[in-house]
Amino acid sequence: MQKRPVFIVSDRTGITAETLGHSLLTQFPKISFETTILPFVDTEEKIFGAVLQIDRAAEAYGVKPLVFTTFANPEYNHRLFAAHGVFFDLFDTFLDRLEKELGQESAHSAGMSHGIRDHDSYTARISAVNFSVHCDDGLHPEAYSQAELILMGVSRSGKTPTSLYLAMHFGLFCANYPLTEEDLEAGVMPKVMIPHRDRIFGLTIDPLRLQVIRQERRSRGQYAELRQCRFEVRQAEAIFHDGKVPYVDTSAASIEEIATTIIARKQLRRGYR
Amino acid sequence: MQKRPVFIVSDRTGITAETLGHSLLTQFPKISFETTILPFVDTEEKIFGAVLQIDRAAEAYGVKPLVFTTFANPEYNHRLFAAHGVFFDLFDTFLDRLEKELGQESAHSAGMSHGIRDHDSYTARISAVNFSVHCDDGLHPEAYSQAELILMGVSRSGKTPTSLYLAMHFGLFCANYPLTEEDLEAGVMPKVMIPHRDRIFGLTIDPLRLQVIRQERRSRGQYAELRQCRFEVRQAEAIFHDGKVPYVDTSAASIEEIATTIIARKQLRRGYR
Repeated sequence: MQKRPVFIVSDRTGITAETLGHSLLTQFPKISFETTILPFVDTEEKIFGAVLQIDRAAEAYGVKPLVFTTFANPEYNHRLFAAHGVFFDLFDTFLDRLEKELGQESAHSAGMSHGIRDHDSYTARISAVNFSVHCDDGLHPEAYSQAELILMGVSRSGKTPTSLYLAMHFGLFCANYPLTEEDLEAGVMPKVMIPHRDRIFGLTIDPLRLQVIRQERRSRGQYAELRQCRFEVRQAEAIFHDGKVPYVDTSAASIEEIATTIIARKQLRRGYR
Repeated sequence: MQKRPVFIVSDRTGITAETLGHSLLTQFPKISFETTILPFVDTEEKIFGAVLQIDRAAEAYGVKPLVFTTFANPEYNHRLFAAHGVFFDLFDTFLDRLEKELGQESAHSAGMSHGIRDHDSYTARISAVNFSVHCDDGLHPEAYSQAELILMGVSRSGKTPTSLYLAMHFGLFCANYPLTEEDLEAGVMPKVMIPHRDRIFGLTIDPLRLQVIRQERRSRGQYAELRQCRFEVRQAEAIFHDGKVPYVDTSAASIEEIATTIIARKQLRRGYR
């Protein structure tokens, strides 16, 4: 397998450059990329160190490293070009066109996208994360009136990671409610949840996939038996139908896919806070 | 304030396009961007709908919307160009150069970066999120032997969101331990934590900022008094010094900045799972 060194270099967190590089490189599954991330490269010394690291990799691999950068400080960016790399710069590439289109110069300031820009919305995002932890796994249903969304599903259907992702990225107040044995036996929307019906979104899952997940974790009695998984999923879907709540199949979807699907279908606000 | 409509359009989650658009647009703080996100645009009909929405916005605002796209299917991408927008295509722009550089065609497949590519690493990431919730706020210290990192700090110093972020994004098994009243009184590394010292990272915070955060949340007795905040922060830092554990000031830092700083300083692996 072809190997290629990759560097992600930024004067701030490097998260944007990392996202860009990752998205592009996953389009080349036949190459093994060996990635080094250099965040907070914000002094002459650190730039010098980065150039050195890139040059060493070029020598060791016998090929120029791919270098993904987002420098808000263009001076540092240009100094990095002294290294023997192939450069992909998000800002350089697009900011010129944007400046012309908008008739304004860009702020050229670092850390705008992953720093704290707006204290109120930042605090709201932290509050959302705290809320999701507070209302994880059926805890504190008395706080459901504050929830913008309540995920419902059987154990291990993906409720916890999805609600935390929605809180972390979109500042959404998201609770999650695990269907209990009694709920599943009854097969109808639990009475206590009826008042919140408009904000409920169901998660369902292929029973076979559920079994695999449950087996990986623990095998408490019948918990991970296929028969039990089939029963629970069937009853959960009956509950969603009874309550007329929408639901999504999480079997082959990533957290990001589940989260963005729910936001789109519930027409909730989406945007980095 | 100048207003400008913005569209993020993708045949998958749109997260990459959203991140890049956001990073670029935050460089123009004087313009008010009104963003519409259209994920999962993966049929002829949906493309047609997207073109219509962009055209309507162009008419309503009297200016062409900025359109950030990441289509893995180039055909859809090209059809979107029929709309009256100014297009910034992240794949088109960089993939050509990458293909030439790597001597390979790109996979042109959608959902590579935010879908499930590798089941094992995806499962590991979910396990990390579950672990962080399991070990949030001092819960289940018996599981600390599994932790790759343990955040330590006073109440409201940012432990919970940071550890969840580290788990979600980097698949890191991260616990967090809140310093108790007794710990703070003692002012030395708690005995139970000494065996884990190598994996502890401290969070400190400006007492004034801590007071603001605590007041926003609740004001239980002396909890949010400045005097108390000062005492706790001073003792927490004494504990970090006593235990010789590194720490970072979270006062003016975002979750992303705190998380990436810790990863860089502890030289932990970083990479989207």
